Order: sequence, then structure tokens, then C-alpha cells
Amino acid sequence: MATDRTPTLRVAGAQIVNAVGDLEGNVTRIRDAMAWAEEEAADVVVFPELALTGYPPGDLVLRSDFLDAAREALDELAAASGSTTAIVSTVDRVPPRRSWDTQHRHVAIGAAVLCDGELRGWYHKVLLPTYELFDEARHFAPGVAPGRLWRLGDAVVGVAICEDLWSGDGPPEAQAIAGAQAMLVPNASPFHREKPGGRRRLVTQVARRNGVPVVYVNGVGGQDELVFDGGSIVVSADGELLHRSPQFRPDLFVVDVALGPRRPVDGRPITVHSRATTQREVRPAPRELPVLSDDEQVWEALVLGTRDFVRRNGARAVTLGLSGGIDAAVTAAVAAEALGPERVLGVAMPAEDGDEELADARELARGLGIRFAVVPIAPITERLEAGVASVLDEDPDALREHSALEARTRAAVLWALADQRGLLPLATGNKSELSIGTGASAGDMSGSFAPLKDCPKTLLYRLARLRNARDGAPIPDSILERPATVHAAPGTDLPPYEVLDAIVERYLEKGEAVEALVQSGYDEAVVRGVLQLVDDAELKRRQTPPGVKITARTFGQDLHMPIANDWRPFRREGRELGSELLPS
Amino acid sequence: MATDRTPTLRVAGAQIVNAVGDLEGNVTRIRDAMAWAEEEAADVVVFPELALTGYPPGDLVLRSDFLDAAREALDELAAASGSTTAIVSTVDRVPPRRSWDTQHRHVAIGAAVLCDGELRGWYHKVLLPTYELFDEARHFAPGVAPGRLWRLGDAVVGVAICEDLWSGDGPPEAQAIAGAQAMLVPNASPFHREKPGGRRRLVTQVARRNGVPVVYVNGVGGQDELVFDGGSIVVSADGELLHRSPQFRPDLFVVDVALGPRRPVDGRPITVHSRATTQREVRPAPRELPVLSDDEQVWEALVLGTRDFVRRNGARAVTLGLSGGIDAAVTAAVAAEALGPERVLGVAMPAEDGDEELADARELARGLGIRFAVVPIAPITERLEAGVASVLDEDPDALREHSALEARTRAAVLWALADQRGLLPLATGNKSELSIGTGASAGDMSGSFAPLKDCPKTLLYRLARLRNARDGAPIPDSILERPATVHAAPGTDLPPYEVLDAIVERYLEKGEAVEALVQSGYDEAVVRGVLQLVDDAELKRRQTPPGVKITARTFGQDLHMPIANDWRPFRREGRELGSELLPS
Repeated sequence: MATDRTPTLRVAGAQIVNAVGDLEGNVTRIRDAMAWAEEEAADVVVFPELALTGYPPGDLVLRSDFLDAAREALDELAAASGSTTAIVSTVDRVPPRRSWDTQHRHVAIGAAVLCDGELRGWYHKVLLPTYELFDEARHFAPGVAPGRLWRLGDAVVGVAICEDLWSGDGPPEAQAIAGAQAMLVPNASPFHREKPGGRRRLVTQVARRNGVPVVYVNGVGGQDELVFDGGSIVVSADGELLHRSPQFRPDLFVVDVALGPRRPVDGRPITVHSRATTQREVRPAPRELPVLSDDEQVWEALVLGTRDFVRRNGARAVTLGLSGGIDAAVTAAVAAEALGPERVLGVAMPAEDGDEELADARELARGLGIRFAVVPIAPITERLEAGVASVLDEDPDALREHSALEARTRAAVLWALADQRGLLPLATGNKSELSIGTGASAGDMSGSFAPLKDCPKTLLYRLARLRNARDGAPIPDSILERPATVHAAPGTDLPPYEVLDAIVERYLEKGEAVEALVQSGYDEAVVRGVLQLVDDAELKRRQTPPGVKITARTFGQDLHMPIANDWRPFRREGRELGSELLPS
Repeated sequence: MATDRTPTLRVAGAQIVNAVGDLEGNVTRIRDAMAWAEEEAADVVVFPELALTGYPPGDLVLRSDFLDAAREALDELAAASGSTTAIVSTVDRVPPRRSWDTQHRHVAIGAAVLCDGELRGWYHKVLLPTYELFDEARHFAPGVAPGRLWRLGDAVVGVAICEDLWSGDGPPEAQAIAGAQAMLVPNASPFHREKPGGRRRLVTQVARRNGVPVVYVNGVGGQDELVFDGGSIVVSADGELLHRSPQFRPDLFVVDVALGPRRPVDGRPITVHSRATTQREVRPAPRELPVLSDDEQVWEALVLGTRDFVRRNGARAVTLGLSGGIDAAVTAAVAAEALGPERVLGVAMPAEDGDEELADARELARGLGIRFAVVPIAPITERLEAGVASVLDEDPDALREHSALEARTRAAVLWALADQRGLLPLATGNKSELSIGTGASAGDMSGSFAPLKDCPKTLLYRLARLRNARDGAPIPDSILERPATVHAAPGTDLPPYEVLDAIVERYLEKGEAVEALVQSGYDEAVVRGVLQLVDDAELKRRQTPPGVKITARTFGQDLHMPIANDWRPFRREGRELGSELLPS
């Protein structure tokens, strides 16, 4: 426990925006936070993992010109550093190193230690996550000095990066044994629903196991499908929570942290400076913020992920189809909050005149304050049907059943509008559809971004009610009350969404196989049917737009399934594609 | 050199089809080849890497039920084995092992050694490629016994798998030092234009460095974007080519290979059997086949990749738009050869009546013998324009310039036809377009598969001439002679295709930066403009269909670029998207 007699370190954390490739912007954000920490008389300020380059930088780090520019940017920051030590994470060139394959890698994920106008040295990340959405072994050489220590005046501290923290016998353990009295940890930890609780548990374990306080700093912002949600935390040596940053927005914080016990130092620490650091009056810890509910976190992730995707891809406004259904309603509400309602164009594209869903769409647009337009698609779809029917030598009416024709007409209208006005088209599809492959290719899943891609249908109703409860209730009750029916290929036996979503979640996120699901009480034929559809949908799924990751296992990001896959454990019949004859 | 007095091993190679997940089919193919090798009195038969599961199996190997089924299949093969030792590569469960991150991996890429009805033991792949298209560190634990040896009667041999071969100080070197007299190497080596020559050079180096003959067996067939091209080779201890299999088709071969010198064996070989292996009359080496030209290899890769993608995704026939351009002509020719012309429906979708390109499309279809249909799109596009114009409050004619409207109409027609008849729609776009982002999203790049995705425009003319030279000259001269012009956003300064393709190839495949390109004589403004377009096109590119890999660096497979990427080294202006206002 921190008492007046325990030596303390004044630690600042800079939970700043993560923007891949934006060296100029990142330098500005880092330099501003360094100046702020200096004013706060902090001993050290910790930035997120790869704060300077953005995370994940992908194959940008294979480019020599990018590495040169990142190094120049770091030198600029080093020159700007003062008496507050700054832990700035960026890529670092290292001697070519071979590890798990035949390639030499010559870049490490580093934490540069900056002080008094100079670069004092580097820590290189040792453990490189290569699972789920991470592919760091592709790009980076592992660090070879897990036990490196740093002397900041009276205090001896360790630096470790993200994955380094979680092995139980990794760099924090090596550094604590060698004499570290505190762990400073830059992170790039993307959001999913179970992440925040997990982080808290793990950081507490690391602190207790090693008897040192842990300062865990995460970035914030959307990068493609990922949302870095912040939520930085500081935990004392005995696992007490000293500070928690808000999620989904930048935060600068400063905490006086009681150091762990002074131990025999056998790690030859690098001296960063020799000024006194631990002789001052301790300020009280900042007050803890209320924690968001699970659904509130998802909502914030959708808003931040959508905002950053749209803006960072150079668009200022979006368009989407307003069908009168729950998917479109939630997508529109997210977009309106992300960009401002004046930057959202909702387009109702009714297939018939005067239907109830058109009225709902209009009411939704009014409630959200977004722009609204109506394009009746019947005239277009009719001509499309006639064209197709002429080739097939069939009555156009015989094609009418196929809602895919309407979906594709709507997609064509939206893309055309987007092109004409420089808008980014949003797809409104959800994870339930994506998992079983309902929805038309180049139809309802078409767009540059699909905010709800990782949200199961059942979650959408909760999100809509959450939004309505906050202010104005913009989503009409009739949309919330309209029954959602699962559409699937004729002959397939699909359960209602509650069951479908539960099966898919347990299969994907918990890795449960048929047996376990059946033992939980699900009908075996239903389970087998659903799981086979999940596998079969990979061909369609591969071309769907990016969306916001909110679950532990996201299609595309976290699941790398082959498209052509003859493993068919769930049912034995062949697929139906290609069973009809060509016109002669 | 092999002489009558040098002990020899009779080695069979089974260059068989690679089909991910098809345990049943793979077992049949392997068992048939084992029986054949037994009849040939081969001492050993070598199969490709992961011949039993297919390569790359992706996240299938994270499924316990798949691992169980693969093990059962292996046990079946072990029981079927006779006096010919079979080296069958498949996945193997190993004790959980942590390596480069915090995850325990419990599966290795193995080579099972089968003989006399039993599984004699395993070799586990040590080097796990995690670069370009490979991500083996994601799934697999590395082997920990690089020097393992096997005694087949009088001979001591080593087994190594694919990447293991290429480090210069890896498993083959460890095995040769320990006493191996021959290297047996299962591979899963996907085709690109420079691969076959590279393999030959490397295998020769390995043989000479270690003084052992090398038997290199590759799989064959298309798996998603990859084509395994076969081309298995056997090289003597002094680097002489003893056998080369054909590319792009299965092959069974048997060669009597002179063993490397008998050395002190310090590797405790596992005894597979103790029958005599090296006391027989040596048969002459089979005759070497002529090698395909570079363009012929590309053609064969396109045909095989397209055939396997279509069939293995459950379709029996395809449709594509016939524009009268070179892209559509080559795509149609590839599809006709891959599937048979009666399984290809070409659809001409002219925007205006009676144009010359429609006549070309008709002539092409006749030349190839494919099905042909005409759907005039003007009636559909007119209605689409009117709908869009009504929202924008503009004269429909003002939109006419935008060829994207026509491209999207064509895509909607093709998808509708595909749905109605169970056809797989092919996109006809090429790598040049893809690299700089011309072409409309949900338009001309829309489809389930894009055979020419990795073929630059300039290559297409060579491929068309190659096809015409073979028989019937199905591609009309007027298509070959029509000048190809680069379409780009207004205001961008694009060079002709010869220059564009060369810049893109050198940038992507050789990693040349602006300076190197300018020194080669390219105009700096042109180079910068092209490279910026390549980076900017990532948003569009991410949603394009899979296609056949034929170059060393394929978009999607081999390049992992962030979509939102603020690194803009090539020009300083912002992007143009979103610069116009929304309708009110």
C-alpha cells in the first residue's frame, strides 16, 4: 500500500489516438502530451504501443522509406524531450535476425526511452502475437533482451510491450527478478466485448505476481476493423486499482505510484538520468470513472469505428439504404452519431408504392435528423428482370420471387449516388446474415463499410433500445416490434435468431463442437444445418466490406478459413450451386 | 555420379492433387499411389506437404474434430502400407508448445513414416514460413528434432519439409552431418512466374552443399488464389537433374537414386525396416520433359486455378460479361479451356445498339464455342440514371458520362443470371486496374472469382496471342488490335500500360522506391502519381474477388496493407473523395 514513507514515481499516461501512417499527426499528439507531462512534473510519461507509427502498420514496415521517416520523427521527439522521461513506442531497425522461418527480419517493435533531449535506449518487444487478428511474426524480429532495466533517478523500472505481459514467465518476470520496482507497459489492445474485464484481471495478476505496480497504457481510435478503446489502467503492487481511463476517447492522466520494494539489482540498468524522482509529496489518486455497460461499450465502439473509418478514408459523408428494418435503423443511428446527422443520406428504395416500411424509414430519418431521399426501384428492377428473363427465355414474373434482384438494384442506386456525390456507401448487414450466407452478393452486403458486420441480429434490438433510451427515441416502435424472420435457401431448416445467434456465438467464440451444443439442449439437425451453412458461406463472406470488431472472433479478422473447403462434417449432401442447366 | 557400384535407393514420387479438407478424396489418391509404388518395387514413396489434409488448411487445424478425422485417415493409410515405405505428410498433435507469443500450439506439420502396416514415426517441420502468402506461425508448433534420421534397410535417409530446405543451416544440414545419404522432401509450393527456376537452383544447392541426392515432391491443383504447379524434381548428390515432373498435372514417377556417401551415423536413426534396399539393378532415369515457356506456365496456372476454384466451390458452370475487350476475351478463353466451352455463358451487354464491340464479342463466343447471350442495358441504365438524378435534382443526361453506372448495371444482370441458373460469375478485371483503382466497386470487378486479378494488362495481349497460336485463333484480331487506354480519375496523369505495368511490377515485386525508378528513366511525377494511386486503391481492392496468383507479389495474398493509411509519401494533396455536398 502507498503510504507517505513509500517512495513513489509520478507516472503520466498518454492515451492518445492511434493513426497508422500519420507520422505528422502522431508526432504532434506525442509532443503535446510530452509537454503536458513536463508541466505536470511527471517523472515519466508512457505512450501506447507503436504510438508513433500507428498500430497495426502492416506491410508499411517493409518499406525502407517509411522506416527512415519514422526514425526522423523519433529523433524530432527525442530532441523535444525534457526532464520527464518519455516512453515512445515505434518501430526500430535491428540487425537482421532469423527466427521461425528462413527470412531475416530487421525491424522490431520498440519502446524508445527519451530524456533530456536524447534517445537513451530501446526496449524491443519479445513476444509477438500471431493468432486471431494479430500477425506480428510476419513483420517483426523478437527482442533479445527481456530483462532490460532503466534507472530514473532513485527508481529502477522495467518496460514491456503488450503481449510481453501475458506469458507468466516473460519480460515482466525477468525484469522484476532483476530489480524492477515498476512496470511501464505500452499497449495496442483492440476492443471486443470481453476485453476490458480481461485486461483488468491480467494486469492485477502481473502486479501481484511480481510485486510491482503496473502502468498499462492503451491507444484509442478506429483502424480498419479494429477499435482501440483506451481504458488504460494503473494497478498497485498489491493489485489495487489506482486509475482507470475512460474508454473510446483520448485521456491524459498522472498518478503517483508507490514503487515496489527495492531489490538487489543485477540487471545493469541503463541510467536515463540521476535526478531525484521519489522525494516529493504524494498527490491523491484521481477518482475512478463509472464503467460503461457491455452494450454501451459496443455502441461506442460502433460509433468510433465508423467515424474513423469514414474520415480516415477521406470521406466526409455517407449514404445507406433505409429499408424500414432494424439493421438499417441501427446503422443510420450509429452513422448519425459518428459523423453528425447532416452528413448521412438515408435512401428509401421501396419496391412497391405506399408500404408501411417506407413510412417507418421516413420517420426514422426525421427522428435522427439525417438527410432523406426516396428512389422507387420498381421501374429499374422491372427492366432488369426483363433483360434477365429474355436470356433465360422465361416470363419475367417467374423471377419476381427473387429478392436478390431488388437488393442488387438498391446496391446499384446507392453506389451511383455515392459516386456522384463523393459519399461512402454503408452496408447494413449484420453478423447473423453473414454467418449463414443469407443476403445477396453485390446486393444488401455491398458497400465500403459495414458497421454491424460483427453484431448478431439479437444484439441490434438491445442497441436500438439503448439509443432510444438516451434521447429523442428516434427509432420508431414499429421497427422495433416488426418480427425478424431468418431467410435461408429453400429447404434449409433454420431456427429463430435467438437460437441461431447463440449457436454461432458458442461455435465461433467458445469453439464448441456439435456434441457440446447438442448437450446444451439444441436440436442436433438444427445445429448441423447451421454449422454447415457457416462453412459454406465463406465464398460470399470473403468479399463483404470491413466492419467494426466487437466480438472475440470476427469473420475475416480472426478466422482464416479456406474458401474451397471439402471438409463437410455437418451434413453429407453436396451444395446446390450449379445444379441447373445453362441456356443453350 | 551414379555408377553400377554406387548403392541406390528406388524412390517414387507422388505429385498428387492438393484438396483442402477432402480427407476422403486425399486418402483415395494417396492409397492408390502407395499401391502403385509397391508394384514398382520402390523402396520409398514421397507425397507432397500436407497431402492428407490439403495445403493450406487455415483455421481448420484449430478444430478438434478435424484433427481427429485426419488422424483416423492416417491410421487407415498406415494399415494399408506394405513394404514400400510411404512418407505421408499431415498434421500431428504434439504436446502444447509456446514459441514466439503466449499461445500454446499443439499441432505440427508432420511427415508420417508408414511401413509394413504401421506408423513408424514422425518428422515435424521446423521452419514455419510466415511471410508473403504464408502464415504457418499462426497455426503450428515448430518441430524440435531437426536432425532425425530413418533407416530403410541399408540406407540412412533424412526427411525435411518445404521451408526446412532453404535456410542453409537447417534440418537437411543437420541430417547430412548426422549421416543421411538422401533427403526426401514433401512440399506445398505455390506457383508464380519465377518459382520453377528458383526451385531448381535451390534444390541443386542443397544437394551439393550436403552431398546427398534430394527428392523434391510438390502437389498440384488450385486452392483459392494459389495454384500448386507440381514440377517435382530429383537431383543427384552432385547437383545433376535426374528427374523433372510436368507442371500443372498429377504425376507418378520412380527414379533409382545413387545414395550419398556412407558417413558415420551419430543421429540414432529410427529403423523403418531392415530389408535390403540397395542391392538391385539400376533402371535408367526417365527422360526429361520439355519445359513450358513463362507465358505457357501462366496460361496453365490460370486454367487450372479457375477450374479448381469453380468446381471446388460447387459450381459447374460460369457466366461473364463479354465487352469486346481483351480482358473479357482472355477470361472467356481461360474459362472455356478450364470447364469446357459448353459450361461458359458469355453475355454481351451493349450500352448502345449495333456497336463494333458487340460484333467482336459475338465472334469471340463463336470462336470459343461458348454459350452467348445479349442483354442491351440501355433500358435498365436509363431508369437507374433517372432514379439517381431525381435525388440529386439533376438532369439524367448530366450523369451519362459516368461509365460506372453501366458497369453496375452489367454486374446486376450477371449476378441475377448467375442466381437464376446457379452459375458462378467471373469478373474480368486485371492487375493493372486493380493496382491503381480504376474500375467501379460493385461494377466491373464484381464476381465470385477474377481469373486475371494478378495479370497486368500488357501480359494479356501475350496470353491472347499464345492461345490464338495454338488452335483456331478464337480471339478476333480486332480485339487484339484495339488500343488499350488507361482510364483514371480526371486530373491524374497516367502513363500508357507498358509504363504503368513496369512501374507497378518493379515497385511491388522488386521493392523499388521512387528514387530507383526515377534513376531507371521514369518521369518522377508519373512515378509518384502511380505509387500514390496504388496506396489509395486499397479501400476498393480489399473487396475484390479472389483470383489466380501468378506473380511474386499478389494483392491480397502477399501484401497486407492497412486500408486507412495516412502515410502519403508520394504526393501531398488530400484525396478527392467527399469533396462535394450532400443533397439537402
